[in-house]
Amino acid sequence: MRPMNIREATKEDWNSIWPIFHEIVSAGETYAYDLNTSKAQAAKIWLDAPRKTYVFEENNEILGSYYLKTNQAGPGNHVCNCGYMVSSKARGKGLATSMCEHSQKMALELGYKAMQFNFVASSNEGAIRLWGKLGFETVGRLPKAFKHPTIGFVDALVMFKWLAKT
Amino acid sequence: MRPMNIREATKEDWNSIWPIFHEIVSAGETYAYDLNTSKAQAAKIWLDAPRKTYVFEENNEILGSYYLKTNQAGPGNHVCNCGYMVSSKARGKGLATSMCEHSQKMALELGYKAMQFNFVASSNEGAIRLWGKLGFETVGRLPKAFKHPTIGFVDALVMFKWLAKT
Repeated sequence: MRPMNIREATKEDWNSIWPIFHEIVSAGETYAYDLNTSKAQAAKIWLDAPRKTYVFEENNEILGSYYLKTNQAGPGNHVCNCGYMVSSKARGKGLATSMCEHSQKMALELGYKAMQFNFVASSNEGAIRLWGKLGFETVGRLPKAFKHPTIGFVDALVMFKWLAKT
Repeated sequence: MRPMNIREATKEDWNSIWPIFHEIVSAGETYAYDLNTSKAQAAKIWLDAPRKTYVFEENNEILGSYYLKTNQAGPGNHVCNCGYMVSSKARGKGLATSMCEHSQKMALELGYKAMQFNFVASSNEGAIRLWGKLGFETVGRLPKAFKHPTIGFVDALVMFKWLAKT
């Protein structure tokens, strides 16, 4: 079994998270962030704005990261949202699964009842399959809401999982 | 025909918009904002954060307001999001219809291709009927994602309309 090396991120981790963020976001295939997001803007998005940010570490190297935040305020604040990023060096090794499972536990500890992914590009078949395996249902389909850099407009999915017992 | 009295909001309008915002948000039945949002926080949410904010004025009195913003950055930035508020003094007079039609025109002028409402409480039947009449389709249903103050957990709908010709 893979040992879980997931811990809360610190400001000092940003130099290690940023290359992963930049690689993924500048490709424009999966995340709804400006492709030219600067290192400073990205730190606000990934480290400052969320309620929590975690890193996946192996042999002192950061290979992945995820954030957890409240998805909607007020009457929607029992549902959280997460985003996960894995370095291209470490794909296919189960890091996204580990981080998603960890995030579900943390969400419950923080008092959330459900988790929602707002904007999963329908072209991102690997992610959709993975979230499905981890219990997320597709509850919405936004027509042509995601502009993929090579395919053009594709639908985006909304995926949702109720976590709490009640 | 009702004359269209819709214009861009200024900072000076906030004293007139705030009572409408506060009345609607503190009721907790329709908007995903903290029920105790302060006047200063609300100004940030309604006037500062959006790309544009408009007011509906009649005889120099502000009776409604709406904001328009980019719903998702980067690959999602061709879709905008709007929120509309009408004073309880002026309900049932077609203000929401006027503002929604105005917002669709403005969205196209600003270069958006589509408009999305992220979080329509399924208990808000009047709004759902109205958006449907104005061409919005329900493209998602978030199970128990909205906590209504008297009914409890209800579903929230995602509604979407493609505005551009292409």
